[in-house]
Amino acid sequence: MSELIDRRRALLSPSYRLFYDRPVHPVRGEGAWLFEADGTRLLDAYNNVVPAGHCHPKVVAAMAAQSARLNTHTRYLHEGILDYSARLLAKFPAELARATFTCTGSEANDLAIRVARFVTGGTGIIVTENAYHGVSGLTAEISPSLGEAVALGAHVRAVPAPAPGVEFGAEVARACADLARHGIKPALLVVDTVFSSDGVFSDPAGVLAPAVAAIHAAGGLFLADEVQPGFGRLGETFWGFARHGVVPDLVSMGKPMGNGYPVAGLVARPEMMAEFGEKIRYFNTFGGNPVAMAAAMATLEAIEEEGLQDNARRVGGFLRAELGARAAVRQVRGAGLFLGVVLESGALASRVVNRMRGLGVLISSAGPKGDVLKIRPPLVLSEDQAGMLVAAFDKAVADG
Amino acid sequence: MSELIDRRRALLSPSYRLFYDRPVHPVRGEGAWLFEADGTRLLDAYNNVVPAGHCHPKVVAAMAAQSARLNTHTRYLHEGILDYSARLLAKFPAELARATFTCTGSEANDLAIRVARFVTGGTGIIVTENAYHGVSGLTAEISPSLGEAVALGAHVRAVPAPAPGVEFGAEVARACADLARHGIKPALLVVDTVFSSDGVFSDPAGVLAPAVAAIHAAGGLFLADEVQPGFGRLGETFWGFARHGVVPDLVSMGKPMGNGYPVAGLVARPEMMAEFGEKIRYFNTFGGNPVAMAAAMATLEAIEEEGLQDNARRVGGFLRAELGARAAVRQVRGAGLFLGVVLESGALASRVVNRMRGLGVLISSAGPKGDVLKIRPPLVLSEDQAGMLVAAFDKAVADG
Repeated sequence: MSELIDRRRALLSPSYRLFYDRPVHPVRGEGAWLFEADGTRLLDAYNNVVPAGHCHPKVVAAMAAQSARLNTHTRYLHEGILDYSARLLAKFPAELARATFTCTGSEANDLAIRVARFVTGGTGIIVTENAYHGVSGLTAEISPSLGEAVALGAHVRAVPAPAPGVEFGAEVARACADLARHGIKPALLVVDTVFSSDGVFSDPAGVLAPAVAAIHAAGGLFLADEVQPGFGRLGETFWGFARHGVVPDLVSMGKPMGNGYPVAGLVARPEMMAEFGEKIRYFNTFGGNPVAMAAAMATLEAIEEEGLQDNARRVGGFLRAELGARAAVRQVRGAGLFLGVVLESGALASRVVNRMRGLGVLISSAGPKGDVLKIRPPLVLSEDQAGMLVAAFDKAVADG
Repeated sequence: MSELIDRRRALLSPSYRLFYDRPVHPVRGEGAWLFEADGTRLLDAYNNVVPAGHCHPKVVAAMAAQSARLNTHTRYLHEGILDYSARLLAKFPAELARATFTCTGSEANDLAIRVARFVTGGTGIIVTENAYHGVSGLTAEISPSLGEAVALGAHVRAVPAPAPGVEFGAEVARACADLARHGIKPALLVVDTVFSSDGVFSDPAGVLAPAVAAIHAAGGLFLADEVQPGFGRLGETFWGFARHGVVPDLVSMGKPMGNGYPVAGLVARPEMMAEFGEKIRYFNTFGGNPVAMAAAMATLEAIEEEGLQDNARRVGGFLRAELGARAAVRQVRGAGLFLGVVLESGALASRVVNRMRGLGVLISSAGPKGDVLKIRPPLVLSEDQAGMLVAAFDKAVADG
């Protein structure tokens, strides 16, 4: 293992980070399991890139078959992008009716910012205080969670996430007013609809509505960043925004979309894309190519055929009840299989994460203080596996 | 076909554009061939995403096998990214010794801009007058070829491409001085090393050296954008910058890297990444994942095992000689299988492109006046196929 770490240091940029004090070195994946070379089995309770489970046979087969047949781009006609778009758009309110495909969630959010600035003529962007929206230049400057070495943009304002006691709508209205005071017209409110990096906030349902009203009143648009919560993870709703009874102007999606294949996208109200699209071409070489669309279609079909949204609701509910009953747990937040488990301190959360890794269960932590365990397994997690997670948690906490 | 066009209009953003007056609707690809549903065979002389040819069996097999085994990310240890990085870096001068992986060329250029601004403390960027470097916010604002609806950044200066009579080094020095006059410290000179969208310029060899000296003298860095010319396409050299005897500070690459799989990257001098990497994490969810690395490794092996760089040199030389002897051709520029064929006007070039498509040969045009045919086939193009291209060109020109 130390040899691999040395090789990383010698070959890769130091921007790369490894998870856990004792890094993971998997050689095979299946369902919610990862396997190390010596046969050690790890329960993956953190990977939201494979909603249908690691190496899902249907997705692998679809991708391999399309790769062997044809893989060109969107400047030629192909049914794949149209069939998938129709299927994807059917998962949205009727107002959201135009798709654009990218390769990463960063690219989708980056494009959303370009569209919003074009449509509104404004430049101001409002995000939450510990938000993460991507690694491109535009998205990094609206991602306070990247730390102080990455400066927020001058036209960016950060508001507290909707923790208890925070009036989220009022905070957004205040940020709009602050932008106006600096002569900056608001363009966009961007919200990860489960507030992942802020520490996971999903309740109360409806909390987004006054914020959306506030940005609209100020002439800006609302982007729901569904890169993390989307595609059924929250159990009760397929998208995070749906939980709050709002209809966004723009919706970005990514990670889970292709069960590991690099595919992401932006869905928008047609009137948002009309003038932008007429005047500005957007060609993403790999975005929406036939293989990406085959992988995304197979992933969406697996989620639906295997009832994974309902599994997320059911197993998530079990996990929530079990963990919520633990003395060490101050609060369980989130929905479905996106849970934030609040512990006493960031130091304890860090110890628990590393101990659970030692016990063969992979999770991580989040929030500005790092005191929130972030649990986000593939949506195929069974109740048995959820029980193993709880047992590992108990042991990790008991070990002090 | 019109039904597919209607469906695109109903489902996709209008930002999407189709090639050719009569769009192409392929159902299968093999080598340099694309096939339509009725069996019509099209010679693809424009796709630089598949250097080893459409649906190369080795790349497809590598990708399928790795997808079925494991596909996680760079926060776990994996040999794939290390083995590929070692192999890739061996294709570079020793100074360029650290790799970072992204999914698209846009992301690689976007990251390079972030790195350059961090390292130099400057913000100014110099590009050529009709450059294209990507579709993210940061890269679009350094891409004049996107047209006037996409404003250049305030800190961006455009210089003429090194056409005959242009002293490229002096132009870059002048742009540095202009930035300084506006109180802007130069951060980066970005050059597509075959000046694709400027109309394809590869000669004289060495023309980049004074420009690199000029940006260095002004405290900025040099990014070689190899997204289009890289991976052997130019025949004599594996990278475009090598033709000019310069060693860049940063090199971005993309399109051909995974023979269709979304993989791209940034290679840099270690001293460029040191402080940036220590202070700023860069996690690209899909970037450098085991499947991306398997696809990239198989692609690089195919290019080497099948002698595709030499094929590009040889068949490119044949094409160049044949086309250069045609009365309708004013000049043939470029190298290997990246050729710019200058015709009398943009209108003629557009007619020739569309007529050749009707004759079953796919090419495009470039340059500020659109008068340069851009020929950029998979590197597997045979001399026979090159002959078909020339015959189609002759017929397209003869048809007026």
